[in-house]
Amino acid sequence: MPDSVLVHSPATLSNLGCGFDVFGLALTAPYDTVRLTRSATPGVRIQHLDPYNLPTDPLQNVAGVALLALLKEVPEAVGFEVEIMKGIMPGSGVGSSAASAAGAVVAANALLGSRFSRMQLVDFAMEGEAVASGARHADNIAPAIFGGFTVVRALQPSIDIVALAAPPLWVAVVHPQIEVKTSDSRKVLPTQVPLGLAVRQWANVAGLVAGFLTADYELIGRSLDDYIVEPARLPLIPGLAEARVRALAAGAIGGGISGSGPSIFMLNRTEETARAVGAALGSVFAELGIAFNVYVGPVGTQGAYVVEEI
Amino acid sequence: MPDSVLVHSPATLSNLGCGFDVFGLALTAPYDTVRLTRSATPGVRIQHLDPYNLPTDPLQNVAGVALLALLKEVPEAVGFEVEIMKGIMPGSGVGSSAASAAGAVVAANALLGSRFSRMQLVDFAMEGEAVASGARHADNIAPAIFGGFTVVRALQPSIDIVALAAPPLWVAVVHPQIEVKTSDSRKVLPTQVPLGLAVRQWANVAGLVAGFLTADYELIGRSLDDYIVEPARLPLIPGLAEARVRALAAGAIGGGISGSGPSIFMLNRTEETARAVGAALGSVFAELGIAFNVYVGPVGTQGAYVVEEI
Repeated sequence: MPDSVLVHSPATLSNLGCGFDVFGLALTAPYDTVRLTRSATPGVRIQHLDPYNLPTDPLQNVAGVALLALLKEVPEAVGFEVEIMKGIMPGSGVGSSAASAAGAVVAANALLGSRFSRMQLVDFAMEGEAVASGARHADNIAPAIFGGFTVVRALQPSIDIVALAAPPLWVAVVHPQIEVKTSDSRKVLPTQVPLGLAVRQWANVAGLVAGFLTADYELIGRSLDDYIVEPARLPLIPGLAEARVRALAAGAIGGGISGSGPSIFMLNRTEETARAVGAALGSVFAELGIAFNVYVGPVGTQGAYVVEEI
Repeated sequence: MPDSVLVHSPATLSNLGCGFDVFGLALTAPYDTVRLTRSATPGVRIQHLDPYNLPTDPLQNVAGVALLALLKEVPEAVGFEVEIMKGIMPGSGVGSSAASAAGAVVAANALLGSRFSRMQLVDFAMEGEAVASGARHADNIAPAIFGGFTVVRALQPSIDIVALAAPPLWVAVVHPQIEVKTSDSRKVLPTQVPLGLAVRQWANVAGLVAGFLTADYELIGRSLDDYIVEPARLPLIPGLAEARVRALAAGAIGGGISGSGPSIFMLNRTEETARAVGAALGSVFAELGIAFNVYVGPVGTQGAYVVEEI
């Protein structure tokens, strides 16, 4: 078994239009880099090599909490030295905390002879998510561990994740650097939904799963629309409506808010289209005078993965 | 082109657990038999060869209304003599009116050189459904025309039906002969749904589509549960809870109310299990002293189809 492993852990899209709290999609970029080194000293020690001033106390760090949850299931005396270099900006809405937590447990599993299943790794990493957001949720963790397109079918009585292959797709993401507090983005959600609207939403959910599994891009495009969550969050993200208009004009299949925002994603058939769509997304925020980053890359067929073992 | 065609048009399950107003599944039995004969006299003349006293005035008969909608798109002077022998009892909740409407338009299309697409046939047949239920809906029409497993993704701005193959499955249906008025079964539905429950429902919707498309029977079983509509309708169908318990004990994958009831369906891996499940379903209503019919058959890979051309 290696003594030290280096893992790349990708950003992820959650919700994916109509599938609030259920769908996830793995990206390839940006990603966090996590190095874990085995130590004879039990416990977890964390260093951040990035400029984000995240807590390094393992009990307050998403990767630390995830690793401590994993270590509870390890009988032997072992600890980890952890170095994290975040490539994903915290608060961007593309699964930043999930990437660090997932990367850490994938690295730990490689150091421990791959004794845990992916479903167990999701369980550990969710403990990290709970620290970041106050709630155990798996919609970013699932694609960060399994890759591809994921459905969190249930959290109770036990976690049930359906991991599906995605057809070839290129994703363009714009991260406008405005702060959308998760608490605000939760607060605007309706507590009750008209039955007729819920039916339209789950009709799209059905269409989106069918579209992914049959590689029907037109169907994916028709099915992405979110009738419930995006309308409520629209006022929190200036430029969203215009960004969609320009992205579709540039050839995007469709898209929406990534997670609880502020990032916006668009799915595309080809790299060329995705680059044009990325530029179109960026142009909206350039005109608004809001700083932004654009990421373009294919859907990730794997989640967090080991790139180096020593 | 033939002068006369005979069509078998199968019963169908709508809703299919979690997919209220969206999912449909074609059966193979029971079915309606529809004979159409071309006539030089424009218009539609209907005879019913069954004991159900259904209206034979084309403007009040589901097959008649569907055929008149189709004839509006036919420029030449042509009419139809129609004989319908219903094998599906009206009001049973397995798409009785949809079967007659679908069978009629499939037969007419065969007499007219198959000039209409299946999607157009759905559109015509929905006019018949509107007469029967007061609303244009396609959840039974879609499987009756396309066969297999269908998703009515949208009715507006235009009908969007996703027709998918179902894995090999055997269906057991019990029709307890109690009257459940469609108006009553609509009246008990909640007008608003808590967001959290809607999310659980669309997580199951996603799981069910994935289960069908990957032939994952365990996933189908876990995903069928309906958190919103079945709980509201449970009081309308005595024996439902007990029927589910006995069916699962007999080996069923899962099931629920068919359409708005009173029929109950259960999905099964094999014919042998389906027959045992059918007997288990029947035993509940035998003990309750309620007359019932049980149907067992494979999922229908085609909808209404021509069995004879003259």
